[in-house]
Amino acid sequence: MSRLREAHGLVIGEGSPGPTNSIVDVPGVLVGHCTVRAPSGACTGVTAVLPHSGDLYREKVPAAATVINGYGKLTGLPQIGELGTLETPIVLTNTLSVGTAWDAVVTWTLQRFDRADDPIHSINPVIGECNDGRVNDIRARAVAEQHVLDALDGASSTAPEEGCVGAGAGMTAFGWKSGVGSSSRRVVLDEGEGTVGVIALPNLGRSDQLSIKGVPIGDRLPGPFRADPAVAGSIVVVIGTDLPCSPRQLGRLARRAAVGIARVGATCDGTSGEFAMAFTTASPIPQGDRSMLHERRINDVSRGLDDAFAAVIEATEEAILSALFSAKPTVTHSGLECPSLPEDAVLGLLRGDSKATA
Amino acid sequence: MSRLREAHGLVIGEGSPGPTNSIVDVPGVLVGHCTVRAPSGACTGVTAVLPHSGDLYREKVPAAATVINGYGKLTGLPQIGELGTLETPIVLTNTLSVGTAWDAVVTWTLQRFDRADDPIHSINPVIGECNDGRVNDIRARAVAEQHVLDALDGASSTAPEEGCVGAGAGMTAFGWKSGVGSSSRRVVLDEGEGTVGVIALPNLGRSDQLSIKGVPIGDRLPGPFRADPAVAGSIVVVIGTDLPCSPRQLGRLARRAAVGIARVGATCDGTSGEFAMAFTTASPIPQGDRSMLHERRINDVSRGLDDAFAAVIEATEEAILSALFSAKPTVTHSGLECPSLPEDAVLGLLRGDSKATA
Amino acid sequence: MSRLREAHGLVIGEGSPGPTNSIVDVPGVLVGHCTVRAPSGACTGVTAVLPHSGDLYREKVPAAATVINGYGKLTGLPQIGELGTLETPIVLTNTLSVGTAWDAVVTWTLQRFDRADDPIHSINPVIGECNDGRVNDIRARAVAEQHVLDALDGASSTAPEEGCVGAGAGMTAFGWKSGVGSSSRRVVLDEGEGTVGVIALPNLGRSDQLSIKGVPIGDRLPGPFRADPAVAGSIVVVIGTDLPCSPRQLGRLARRAAVGIARVGATCDGTSGEFAMAFTTASPIPQGDRSMLHERRINDVSRGLDDAFAAVIEATEEAILSALFSAKPTVTHSGLECPSLPEDAVLGLLRGDSKATA
Amino acid sequence: MSRLREAHGLVIGEGSPGPTNSIVDVPGVLVGHCTVRAPSGACTGVTAVLPHSGDLYREKVPAAATVINGYGKLTGLPQIGELGTLETPIVLTNTLSVGTAWDAVVTWTLQRFDRADDPIHSINPVIGECNDGRVNDIRARAVAEQHVLDALDGASSTAPEEGCVGAGAGMTAFGWKSGVGSSSRRVVLDEGEGTVGVIALPNLGRSDQLSIKGVPIGDRLPGPFRADPAVAGSIVVVIGTDLPCSPRQLGRLARRAAVGIARVGATCDGTSGEFAMAFTTASPIPQGDRSMLHERRINDVSRGLDDAFAAVIEATEEAILSALFSAKPTVTHSGLECPSLPEDAVLGLLRGDSKATA
Repeated sequence: MSRLREAHGLVIGEGSPGPTNSIVDVPGVLVGHCTVRAPSGACTGVTAVLPHSGDLYREKVPAAATVINGYGKLTGLPQIGELGTLETPIVLTNTLSVGTAWDAVVTWTLQRFDRADDPIHSINPVIGECNDGRVNDIRARAVAEQHVLDALDGASSTAPEEGCVGAGAGMTAFGWKSGVGSSSRRVVLDEGEGTVGVIALPNLGRSDQLSIKGVPIGDRLPGPFRADPAVAGSIVVVIGTDLPCSPRQLGRLARRAAVGIARVGATCDGTSGEFAMAFTTASPIPQGDRSMLHERRINDVSRGLDDAFAAVIEATEEAILSALFSAKPTVTHSGLECPSLPEDAVLGLLRGDSKATA
Repeated sequence: MSRLREAHGLVIGEGSPGPTNSIVDVPGVLVGHCTVRAPSGACTGVTAVLPHSGDLYREKVPAAATVINGYGKLTGLPQIGELGTLETPIVLTNTLSVGTAWDAVVTWTLQRFDRADDPIHSINPVIGECNDGRVNDIRARAVAEQHVLDALDGASSTAPEEGCVGAGAGMTAFGWKSGVGSSSRRVVLDEGEGTVGVIALPNLGRSDQLSIKGVPIGDRLPGPFRADPAVAGSIVVVIGTDLPCSPRQLGRLARRAAVGIARVGATCDGTSGEFAMAFTTASPIPQGDRSMLHERRINDVSRGLDDAFAAVIEATEEAILSALFSAKPTVTHSGLECPSLPEDAVLGLLRGDSKATA
Repeated sequence: MSRLREAHGLVIGEGSPGPTNSIVDVPGVLVGHCTVRAPSGACTGVTAVLPHSGDLYREKVPAAATVINGYGKLTGLPQIGELGTLETPIVLTNTLSVGTAWDAVVTWTLQRFDRADDPIHSINPVIGECNDGRVNDIRARAVAEQHVLDALDGASSTAPEEGCVGAGAGMTAFGWKSGVGSSSRRVVLDEGEGTVGVIALPNLGRSDQLSIKGVPIGDRLPGPFRADPAVAGSIVVVIGTDLPCSPRQLGRLARRAAVGIARVGATCDGTSGEFAMAFTTASPIPQGDRSMLHERRINDVSRGLDDAFAAVIEATEEAILSALFSAKPTVTHSGLECPSLPEDAVLGLLRGDSKATA
Repeated sequence: MSRLREAHGLVIGEGSPGPTNSIVDVPGVLVGHCTVRAPSGACTGVTAVLPHSGDLYREKVPAAATVINGYGKLTGLPQIGELGTLETPIVLTNTLSVGTAWDAVVTWTLQRFDRADDPIHSINPVIGECNDGRVNDIRARAVAEQHVLDALDGASSTAPEEGCVGAGAGMTAFGWKSGVGSSSRRVVLDEGEGTVGVIALPNLGRSDQLSIKGVPIGDRLPGPFRADPAVAGSIVVVIGTDLPCSPRQLGRLARRAAVGIARVGATCDGTSGEFAMAFTTASPIPQGDRSMLHERRINDVSRGLDDAFAAVIEATEEAILSALFSAKPTVTHSGLECPSLPEDAVLGLLRGDSKATA
């Protein structure tokens, strides 16, 4: 259970989370982390999200992505836009390790294909990144292919660890140590229930901007980290669902992540790379099958789609906050202490506003 | 039958046209023209394309559009992009009459809705335009709401007249009188047959650019019209099909119109407004129904989709040429003669190239 | 002065407004309203924004637009995207009057051009809309061309009236009567000062969503209007500035309006048409001049651009709230009372949260 | 000199090439190849394009890209779209080596930055690819980081070798061995002269589609390679110029590459990854400088921009053909002979059409 809600009574939004309040509440979704730390200054890692445990290349999933502010990288977007499908895991890592992760996803995918059986020639790895250079000695490029393979091979459907693990190891946000966070929401359709899950890698925001449950507390918290202003912020939001959506609709879901990001007080700074993407496990597309597809999808004018939008907004907001609440103080590669969010001060401020705790 | 193929033996591409070699070969599609001519200099009009004869607002059709060069207007694109549906006829007219046509489509749609039964409040008219100001006294704004309603009410499933009718009345292209043209191609899927139909309003191209069946004949034809170089060119291509396609796939179809346009020698000049849109009649979306949709669509990696792309390319190329071959010489509002394509000279040149006629 | 700040002490954000805290603080910008009311149920109108008082067609201004959620209409976007220029006023009106407004802008522009001198053939009117059908008898289509011309001809550089005037006459938002609102912010660059101004037409949001200064008060206010749920919401945000920006940068500014919208609690519902556009008066582009252009622009990595983004966010948030605070209770065309925001209750709630008033 | 024009008298289009008829005619532009061949089946490589010989990261160049058909990869597009700048070389290689090339560009860029002086944390490598799996044993992933560094370090301003070198080693197109090709065109503005240069990596097209100077000769040539139909085609077109263009205008240039591609008969198949990008050397953007920029740019309505569009179209067409004419027969990794274009047969067919040779 997310400590945000359980330990602190902080309830974000109106919706109901799934059993683990994380993206693995979407049936089939797996998450794996590999954290890379070394005395030399490495404090970074890899987080992998797998839409399902089957063969992702042979059972592609409908997907879409959106660029909120493009000062960053998310590989694979043109093919996702053209075909509406995702054929690999999504891997998150630091800014300078995108190439390594890309390569590792190729290795991992090819391992699953016998040359004789299926002469695979093209793979579209989807690699997102945030810049952890405030904490991590990013120029050391400590992430190796094996780290990525470890994150992929270790992925599981148990609730993912949050905070300073995997790609979250070196994140900072709003002047505090950040990490990786996750959340989920149930969505009830007339035709049955589904889940929207989010995993977020928040690395953005100035210390005076943080807002929790609408309360702007950022400039009232003592002792934030003095971030190197030359290091750009960023955030990647990955949305999974089992609701039947077309790629066009998944694009609509992805665009709603921007509302969740705005709700924590971030202002989409010009140097902040902000990306969101969404996939659904509802209608996998078999590789090589060329026959007509029969698909279900939510009606765009149904209440169900607006509920899915609300779920994205709430789960994005909660995933960001959960990353902050889960992160531990960390010594940066240059020897500074990057503090974690002072929970007591935060809760006190929220209580003072009377409406913040249940 | 298109005179291009029948009268002149000019066969464009490899595919087989439908029975009328026009967009109405797509079952259900209707086309209507209203031509507006007056001694005072009006030489313009309206062409309407209806995806089906039912209630378009209550039975929306999947649709997509693309902007090849945006120096022009095609209203309604944001909603088509967001929802992937078309809920009105597509109306083509001259550049300064878009507002009138927009208004008329609202009138026409509201006439079909009783206030008490269905409190319709929003309509997304799709109006395309080309600038007929070389021929038509465009500033007189001769198109009235009734002309648009006449085109809509007169729409039928018989093969549309081509050349200087409807929105084609004032077109010029490649230095010759142009008009409206149409063509179609059959597409054979494993699961059955379908049709791609195109209607084009070509108003673009310099006289030295015209190319027919790959033969650049533009600069070898005598006596082209000296067009006012200050008047921008443009083209609108409307693609209809009964193949089951998602809006994303219809966007892919629409983008292939650019290849057909390139094949007649046009170079996408900076001041040429070039737009294409596509709809399918295969999966209408009922207005007000909010239940889950069940849809079929072609597989993106099937041969069928590439065949549909080829059909768009060929039918666009042929529709443009058919507009030129069908147009009659016209006296412009300033008293100049705008000649039509000299058929004998064209055919001679093509024959000289030995490969041009069947 | 905006009553929000002056009368109620509600200070939105950190930035300093210009002298009138409205879009006309951008030197040269004009705003005109024409309100259309009739006993028969008309409660609608037109609001026009002119980037400058000169000849807009002959002195085009750099511009860009963004579609936040495309279930709505904003004409002219393809040409703005292709050329990066705006050549007409921006006109806002109700959903079914877009065609009339489009036509009127053509009339108004042509009036300024003698046929002999300048054979204008193409005009790209930019018309935005919100659906005022909850309040206004929208199907009566009460806006006539003369209303639009009146708004254009009456435009002035004095601070625009806010609330239920012009296009704001029939707006509702968050369960309360809304209208049109405006705000501005100063931006200080190393090279001098500039202004970002916003005019917003908010017509969106459910009653439980309203948030003011981060305090979610929507569900604690008594007696909101029971809006017809079948009528979609929407918002148009027009941003003007005199900062030197390229169209690409203006697109970045326009996209930040989404953060301001999120800050009042709106959730970008699927049926809400949400659009923003931005223009700069800094570098007009002379029509017909074909020589090389020399332009200044803010550096993308300067603090100035982020300050301009913050200005857009704050001015959008304040313009929306100002529209709400300025609106008067209105009887709808079906005889219902649409109440205005209960100021005392709002201020009490905000005071109870201690941080809301200065 | 390109053999196409010099040796065979094949003149493409109306424009005049620069001194080498290649992209290095754009002053400052460098091209480097590294070809990777091994008895084990490797037949692949790397081609690098550098906008200038200075420090690309510290002197970024305005740039834009377009996705013609997105079934492929071109990394770095979101940042190019957001900021309008290119800060690294452009590297072309095979589909499965994108990660390696990405990594190598990071290595190469970091080598130029002392940690103490300039704490670079973010780099946006631009890597394009075509699938050479018909010829190359692509799954062996023979391209190593050093190969990429060799291409980068060996880049020069002498006319680049064409055909089966660098990334062109394993290309096939229209049923024949292809490679890399380049061409250029002069553009005369009122304010002086400039150059548009293109380098193309054509790997697309079925054997029956090839068209040269408008003559469809593809199905009349004997003995094309029987390509594995499961391997998708693709093409990357890189456009450089010294004309002063904004990123928006460079996007317009890039989109015209599609016309050049259409002119050789290609049909933009659904599985063909087709990308184009453009940069200008005219207005480099200094890294770290945050002051106001003063820039010149061509007027969008000037004849100069249309001439630049025509230059892109012609140079793209000629670069594709030059790649084909320069390629040598190659034995594929599975032991098949992939023939080169039969020059005599081609020239005979073109002569038979009387118009093909000067």
